Amino acid sequence: MLGNFSYKNATKLYFGDDSLSYLNEELPKYGKNIQLIYGGGSIKRNGIYDQIVKILKDNGKNIIEDAGVMPNPTIEKLREGVKIARDNNVDLLLAVGGGSCCDYAKAVSVSVHCDEDPWDKYYIRFEEPTCEIVPVGCILTMAGTGSEMNAGSVITNHEQKLKIGHVFGEEVMPKFSILNPKFTFSLPKRQMVAGIYDIFNHICEQYFSGEDDNTSDYLAEALMKSLIHSSLIAIEDPEDYEARSNIMWTATWALNTLISRGKSTDWMVHMIGQSVGAYTDATHGMTLAAVSLPYYRYILPYGVKKFKRFAEEVWNVSSEGKTDEQVALEGLSAMEDWMKKIGVSLNISELGATEDMIDGITEGTIILEGGYKVLSKDEVREILKQSL
Amino acid sequence: MLGNFSYKNATKLYFGDDSLSYLNEELPKYGKNIQLIYGGGSIKRNGIYDQIVKILKDNGKNIIEDAGVMPNPTIEKLREGVKIARDNNVDLLLAVGGGSCCDYAKAVSVSVHCDEDPWDKYYIRFEEPTCEIVPVGCILTMAGTGSEMNAGSVITNHEQKLKIGHVFGEEVMPKFSILNPKFTFSLPKRQMVAGIYDIFNHICEQYFSGEDDNTSDYLAEALMKSLIHSSLIAIEDPEDYEARSNIMWTATWALNTLISRGKSTDWMVHMIGQSVGAYTDATHGMTLAAVSLPYYRYILPYGVKKFKRFAEEVWNVSSEGKTDEQVALEGLSAMEDWMKKIGVSLNISELGATEDMIDGITEGTIILEGGYKVLSKDEVREILKQSL
Repeated sequence: MLGNFSYKNATKLYFGDDSLSYLNEELPKYGKNIQLIYGGGSIKRNGIYDQIVKILKDNGKNIIEDAGVMPNPTIEKLREGVKIARDNNVDLLLAVGGGSCCDYAKAVSVSVHCDEDPWDKYYIRFEEPTCEIVPVGCILTMAGTGSEMNAGSVITNHEQKLKIGHVFGEEVMPKFSILNPKFTFSLPKRQMVAGIYDIFNHICEQYFSGEDDNTSDYLAEALMKSLIHSSLIAIEDPEDYEARSNIMWTATWALNTLISRGKSTDWMVHMIGQSVGAYTDATHGMTLAAVSLPYYRYILPYGVKKFKRFAEEVWNVSSEGKTDEQVALEGLSAMEDWMKKIGVSLNISELGATEDMIDGITEGTIILEGGYKVLSKDEVREILKQSL
Repeated sequence: MLGNFSYKNATKLYFGDDSLSYLNEELPKYGKNIQLIYGGGSIKRNGIYDQIVKILKDNGKNIIEDAGVMPNPTIEKLREGVKIARDNNVDLLLAVGGGSCCDYAKAVSVSVHCDEDPWDKYYIRFEEPTCEIVPVGCILTMAGTGSEMNAGSVITNHEQKLKIGHVFGEEVMPKFSILNPKFTFSLPKRQMVAGIYDIFNHICEQYFSGEDDNTSDYLAEALMKSLIHSSLIAIEDPEDYEARSNIMWTATWALNTLISRGKSTDWMVHMIGQSVGAYTDATHGMTLAAVSLPYYRYILPYGVKKFKRFAEEVWNVSSEGKTDEQVALEGLSAMEDWMKKIGVSLNISELGATEDMIDGITEGTIILEGGYKVLSKDEVREILKQSL
């Protein structure tokens, strides 16, 4: 735990198959006007929408509809949401869905009372909100992004071919999040799997960095092991409550800043994956999966010690009679086997990326420090070629 | 993650060797009158007191002294602290010390504006505060209890020979806690070790319960492994910053409710240990250590599966060619070896307990459910005899 850091995360979580009922405890804390944010309407088909609307009406709230949040929420949609909130004096932004809806709600929350256009202010200049922030609550129907207990918000600008995430301060975190594992049961398997890999990668990005001995790395390994274990149960039986609940809880703790405390982190897989996403509009978790192995195999020689620890602690690779590098590589092979078992995308071609996009995706990749090797643009291009 | 539960923990943590400077960020949020709570004066000898007083004065605060908080804070001292807070219209209770000071500050916080005597209301009837709660901030000088990020408060009544803990609601948690690992360097080794075992036991009490597959158990194992690893470094070199910082961080996360989410828990070692403490006034962590192994060996047959997992995951015990019970017992032997290495008390006689106290300690032990076996008073007596 080197360095100085702070930690505060005040989101109240309600977890379990009865957790929606706790919406009744939260609603009295807010005014009458509730902006109900959701995506393509699956919550109408599976009945979740009706349950929520009933609770809102029982609590005497006005419901302001804000449907159609897309998987990678766009700046145009964000501007639309801000207008809805302003026109209706919204008191609470209630996001129902996965990370896209939560990220979008947070982006709206910091933009309603802000005169400037949010894209330039928050996603290009990375400024902090100086205006009043409208409170956000989340009701999850998909586990993966961890957006329910963090201050991150990723917005896509198709015109500029950019998909950028801003991690705001703690005051932007949702006030409450409702996590009912059963709400994730009806999700198509491909979406479930993309979420699982998104979680896994969040943990990797915080784990594969730094050489100091750190409690955070032990916690990261615990989350990985629980996730791997439950994922293999969930792909056989997506309605296994215990497995889906562990996956949901793991998602939350993988990205609420806990496991990055006191250590450096490396978010390059997200940077490359998000740039792939900006070009292909492919599912976030799948873009991460498709570039992960080429990236990790590339940087492994610069961080052998940690990759060896990963192999031993997470994948039970025996080190007997092997070099450190062999052990480390076996860890990545075990990870690849697991990725194949759960069925994530292992290359960007199947996500719609083509050779002629490589330069553009490379250009759109933000280079961050923190990893075992700071990449050049040429190295990003090489990793992308290996991901094709 | 079975069952329904909620989680909220809004304590802001400042961690690191520069963390005290963040007191400057917190103080402006509170009024002028600061009740400065501390123990026997070691903070005056090591200079921490002077550093804090300077920051308080620089921020224009009135300092109201409340010294002399004893290792097991008594109800008499609590009544004294409440009077100090009332007489001085205190705006913030600033506890400087270990768990005793933090626990005491929380007990004062819920009692200042309450007409009833706190002992009966909070520690006998376990009622929740219905009055205004005075905010609490903590500056840790000892790692162990986790009191810096939870709502627990243990108070001792010598007259009634009772040491009782109340876990209050989230609104009683400290508003902020400052964790500087260097502030723990000057602690006598015996106190450091007692703190380490207190942490370990907190994790055990939440781990050795339930049979379901649960992310919380993976996190518990991670905390145990990091703690064991760092404890062995710290007993050789108490000024190893990395080891002491991991121990400090582990303490916080071992008892801020995270690793008990979605599972049952078993607090019987604390119940027996606290009763020993009420008779001997021995250091909390040492009382837990002295009764742990007799207790765990006694309940092992009722929870073999979990004790086997503990042996394999935490202590790397190989299961080859052994029965589950053999593996499980080897885990406890490995734990005993570690306890000997770090030097905790392994029997209650050396803490001052005598044969003739056994009946009284048994009587004072509160029996809780949640463990693999709900004990009878006769079983408690038997475990205490084995602990002598």
